[in-house]
Amino acid sequence: MGQLLKVQNFTVSRDGFGAGDGQSLERPFGHADPASLMSWAGATASWPNRTDPGGSRGLDDYLTRDFSHNIGAEIMGSHKFSPYRGPWEDHSWLGWWGDEPPFHTPVFVLTHHLRPSFTLSDTTFHFIDDDPATALEKAQAAANGKDVRLGGGATTVREFLDAGLVDTLHVAVSNEVELGSGVRLWESPDELLDRYHCDVVPSPGGAVTHHLFWRR
Amino acid sequence: MGQLLKVQNFTVSRDGFGAGDGQSLERPFGHADPASLMSWAGATASWPNRTDPGGSRGLDDYLTRDFSHNIGAEIMGSHKFSPYRGPWEDHSWLGWWGDEPPFHTPVFVLTHHLRPSFTLSDTTFHFIDDDPATALEKAQAAANGKDVRLGGGATTVREFLDAGLVDTLHVAVSNEVELGSGVRLWESPDELLDRYHCDVVPSPGGAVTHHLFWRR
Repeated sequence: MGQLLKVQNFTVSRDGFGAGDGQSLERPFGHADPASLMSWAGATASWPNRTDPGGSRGLDDYLTRDFSHNIGAEIMGSHKFSPYRGPWEDHSWLGWWGDEPPFHTPVFVLTHHLRPSFTLSDTTFHFIDDDPATALEKAQAAANGKDVRLGGGATTVREFLDAGLVDTLHVAVSNEVELGSGVRLWESPDELLDRYHCDVVPSPGGAVTHHLFWRR
Repeated sequence: MGQLLKVQNFTVSRDGFGAGDGQSLERPFGHADPASLMSWAGATASWPNRTDPGGSRGLDDYLTRDFSHNIGAEIMGSHKFSPYRGPWEDHSWLGWWGDEPPFHTPVFVLTHHLRPSFTLSDTTFHFIDDDPATALEKAQAAANGKDVRLGGGATTVREFLDAGLVDTLHVAVSNEVELGSGVRLWESPDELLDRYHCDVVPSPGGAVTHHLFWRR
């Protein structure tokens, strides 16, 4: 099957938004509360951002520990990388993730505002201004034969879906959080059923329902 | 948490048997039909024994592709390794798996009938006559800091459970296959609930119900 393009652990509100309105440095997800949206993942032993020991090792942990499995590169949109818009005033912004980003691979940031690559620990960020197919070619070439993660946000996932480039998607749909507005992934998961198989699996924790898509 | 001991993709009949009676060279699972028991896994893209492309990439595939994730060694019982009983007449038997066993790590076979280690591709089989705790120490030392898989059969899993050594278990319980007799894992999964959390997750394919245990 070659190198897959995979969306992993992407969480949306019940009404289909991956983030709220009004992203800022203080509110990376706008009016959405990321702790609430991502609580299902934060409770697992394998969540990459976990700092204390413990955590569950049931179904949700299979999903979070698959995050880095056979992944050789990530593609992300500019709003996942940064709250700033327009040309860079300087290059002091190095992402939200501190000195040890959880990617551990090359990361390709799609942006109209290019800047030099930089490396933090074992993650190197590259900045590219390409269409989805070209971006995927670059990421696959950097991935050493492994799969590529499509990291979001929702607009970026949508663009790659519309270009027919996504092989598998795991979207966790919140059972509780409604946002009303924001950055939309879909009106309904049913939109993808003409092109994808889908397993619908309630999280035993109850906060989300996992939607696991793969190409027909 | 250190190095975990994990049971993965272990499938039992609805009435709790991991294999039937009468194991032989022709019938590795005795009167049980392994193709029927393991059909849920064989349908997935990541099943290690898959030879053709294709296969599902939904929930069941998360379970099969986790098979080698962070695993550095396997421990198995003698009946998983071979249909023969008693002392070895010669050393021509090299396991059921052909020239490319799906383990890709050191494998420790628990047996009262020792023989020299041998290597097939990137799997090396060692033969040890130890209690579970000692066997686990040897496997952990060989695992380069990674986790250890407890590969079965049911009797071996039972012995390590009784010794309190198992950290996580994934047991797929068939919804259809009843064996009536054979090598028993349990009377009921409820036996483990005093010591383990358990997520009970129906396979979307309908053939099995996944039971995902981790220590309380």
